[in-house]
Amino acid sequence: MAEQKKMVEEITSMEEDFAKWYTDVVKKAELASYSCVRGCMVVRPYGTALWENIRDNLDRRFKALGHENVMMPLFIPESLLQKEKDHVEGFAPEVAWVTHGGAEHLQERLCVRPTSETLFCDHYAQVIHSYRDLPKLYNQWCSVVRWEKTTRPFLRTMEFFWQEGHTMHETAEEALAETERMLNVYADFCEHDLAIPVVKGRKTDKEKFAGAEATYTIEALMHDGKALQSGTSHYFGDGFARAFGIQFTGRDNTLQYPHQTSWGMSSRIIGAIIMTHGDNNGLVLPPAVAPVQVVILPIAMHKEGVLDKALELQKRLSSTFRVKVDSSDNSAGWKFSEYEMKGVPLRLEIGPKDIANNQCVLVRRDNRGKTFVSLDNLEEAIAAQLEAVRAGLYAKALARREEMTYSVKTLDELKDAAEHRPGFLKAMWCGDLACEEKLKEEAGVTSRCIPFEQEHISDTCVCCGKPAKHMLYWGKAY
Amino acid sequence: MAEQKKMVEEITSMEEDFAKWYTDVVKKAELASYSCVRGCMVVRPYGTALWENIRDNLDRRFKALGHENVMMPLFIPESLLQKEKDHVEGFAPEVAWVTHGGAEHLQERLCVRPTSETLFCDHYAQVIHSYRDLPKLYNQWCSVVRWEKTTRPFLRTMEFFWQEGHTMHETAEEALAETERMLNVYADFCEHDLAIPVVKGRKTDKEKFAGAEATYTIEALMHDGKALQSGTSHYFGDGFARAFGIQFTGRDNTLQYPHQTSWGMSSRIIGAIIMTHGDNNGLVLPPAVAPVQVVILPIAMHKEGVLDKALELQKRLSSTFRVKVDSSDNSAGWKFSEYEMKGVPLRLEIGPKDIANNQCVLVRRDNRGKTFVSLDNLEEAIAAQLEAVRAGLYAKALARREEMTYSVKTLDELKDAAEHRPGFLKAMWCGDLACEEKLKEEAGVTSRCIPFEQEHISDTCVCCGKPAKHMLYWGKAY
Repeated sequence: MAEQKKMVEEITSMEEDFAKWYTDVVKKAELASYSCVRGCMVVRPYGTALWENIRDNLDRRFKALGHENVMMPLFIPESLLQKEKDHVEGFAPEVAWVTHGGAEHLQERLCVRPTSETLFCDHYAQVIHSYRDLPKLYNQWCSVVRWEKTTRPFLRTMEFFWQEGHTMHETAEEALAETERMLNVYADFCEHDLAIPVVKGRKTDKEKFAGAEATYTIEALMHDGKALQSGTSHYFGDGFARAFGIQFTGRDNTLQYPHQTSWGMSSRIIGAIIMTHGDNNGLVLPPAVAPVQVVILPIAMHKEGVLDKALELQKRLSSTFRVKVDSSDNSAGWKFSEYEMKGVPLRLEIGPKDIANNQCVLVRRDNRGKTFVSLDNLEEAIAAQLEAVRAGLYAKALARREEMTYSVKTLDELKDAAEHRPGFLKAMWCGDLACEEKLKEEAGVTSRCIPFEQEHISDTCVCCGKPAKHMLYWGKAY
Repeated sequence: MAEQKKMVEEITSMEEDFAKWYTDVVKKAELASYSCVRGCMVVRPYGTALWENIRDNLDRRFKALGHENVMMPLFIPESLLQKEKDHVEGFAPEVAWVTHGGAEHLQERLCVRPTSETLFCDHYAQVIHSYRDLPKLYNQWCSVVRWEKTTRPFLRTMEFFWQEGHTMHETAEEALAETERMLNVYADFCEHDLAIPVVKGRKTDKEKFAGAEATYTIEALMHDGKALQSGTSHYFGDGFARAFGIQFTGRDNTLQYPHQTSWGMSSRIIGAIIMTHGDNNGLVLPPAVAPVQVVILPIAMHKEGVLDKALELQKRLSSTFRVKVDSSDNSAGWKFSEYEMKGVPLRLEIGPKDIANNQCVLVRRDNRGKTFVSLDNLEEAIAAQLEAVRAGLYAKALARREEMTYSVKTLDELKDAAEHRPGFLKAMWCGDLACEEKLKEEAGVTSRCIPFEQEHISDTCVCCGKPAKHMLYWGKAY
């Protein structure tokens, strides 16, 4: 057999070049690689397993609330896309158009779905007749395509993976409640399972979804001080319903238009995980979604009984955790680096001395904290350590966000902060689009959201000095 | 509240019009409906839940054998599709072409993937370098598009849902073993979990996959005597590897081409379930994949304690089975028909008398067999009844297939059978394409497969009278 020499490959440090650090981690942790199709990635087994865990976790939450999955067509006829005016204006410039099927030139172009409101509405018009048919709580898992100019793996790709929920309700109140409920599901998933703190709020009119009356968002702050919109939930009122002629007979026997929501979380959340928890040794994964939660490394593997014990532990633990044993002939040092790079939350080391003492060593990925634990109650010890990793990741990310969040009262302060101290900027706003545009142009920041938790920073708009209406989070964003 | 009147909707009987019966079942069981995109369907919640159960079941089997999921791009650049000559000839006439992204006219057209061999090969060229990188056992769950002229829900749609496994191996033997292994996974899934008996065999050169050296298939016989190809597994040799320049350093330190397989099962298997088990009361679902395995119907629901008991049973059973309670105010008669239409394997009836006797009634969907069972060991009783449904479905389907399988020795016999007795025709074949084409033209039958289990029907080809090489299954097919 040819000798295998594996080297620990170094990655660019995040202080040196954050963007390069990011793509290094994506590549070296084997999450994704570039494909031959511009702007489309190949999500590799490790990245796909991570996405499947995210999907299963969210899907369980959706189903527990009564949502049902459906599978809609991949294509939207041009005329259907055009039915809702604001929506088509928002999306038409960035869709992929199918013009030929085999040798046949199509009479009507089909776009590859950039989002599926129009398809859901077309279907809802067929199946909603009475208030008894409501609410409809549908969701689908799929990929969508938006013709982006510059792309980066997970953060912005031409094709990306997501779920899109589309619901219809009897009343505006119910639809608004659903919009908020789903935002809370996303926030809870991010904060609890991904250990990513988020700010919940509403988008300004400028930043809201094409065709929506209101867009709610959760915004996270990345390591480099840039914001990442991590999930959105939209309230549509009855705008689409009117455009698509969806009507139902109400409890009072009159014909009414239902009220609609949609909400989505996409594979860019993987980018958020990387840029919230990652470090210069690579990826750091929150235990709830890590493809491997515990990697078992047999130490001095050639010694009698070590490999057997490692395999025995794998068998024992795999009914409770996602476990892997690495029994390859790579060096222990290489293995340590490899599983740090892959962000495995816990490393379990077991060698001859440990076996003699009926114990093993658990090493946390997030802080390299080491614990010797008895094999007798290993499950409890691992569960506790995984929870400690989760809590530790959250606390660290929250502390960093707080450290990188600044209140500013004047335009000069805002410009200075935007230039020198990347992070969230809290500032008052008068509500005028002109001020939003000016801040973008002069300070390079966009409004991230009008947070539900308002604070009073000052009385006047940070930009124009007129009386302020809201406190906003501003920032540079992915 | 407006009074709700629900009528039991009748479906066309299969004896009257089988095709109409099929689409009636698809529609009335709420599996799928037509969309505004020609040839694309909306898979409704019930159909999607069925597909998710099929997916999860297969995915578990794949992963247990070491396969890993990936997510490849949706698009294939035209030049990439053209790299393997036979493959492009097979698929180019039936792909959808993207020619514009937003307002930009693309320099190179992209097709929407009809299958992903080319994309996997392009990726494998990047990640396979040494024999240590082999085997690669990848799979993906996605939808693909083929520009079909005439379409029918699940059986033939422009967009369909499937999994496609793509594997690379060190040697031809290993790849051939994988091709067979995966065919056996499909056969076992069909026979055990879907209760659909299948014939395993090899496709003739005429019927094999574009670019493959050999295609293996499982063929099922539908209620109307037509065959349905239910899963295929292909052996490619190193043809694609050569076309895509995929090479690895072997154990002997020489550069070698890996050997490849691919295998797929699609949403058309839902068509097979419908047309194998369905009857004139609607769908009949095999328990392993049924979205609802047991529907609990409270009888005389207004009587005190009945609904409570039904809900209590639901809670108790739902950790073991997929259970639903229908506590709507629809009549018991309507509910019986509704859940028969939806093919729910078991109906659990519970009324005041049953409660008094600490019992309930289980009614099988497949034969309406009724059992009174004690509430004390309800789980065991339900598990036994579900297994009885599965075994009953399989036995019935197998008996029907045997009844509808005919051995024929002469062309006249074959033509007569093809015209008057729909089913599988077993007949000898000389191996010449000309005979295959003649049988298609004169009798309207295609070769389904060269079964692994050969029988000697006669010495000579059913068509030309020359010495026979193989016994084949022939038939009309979906």
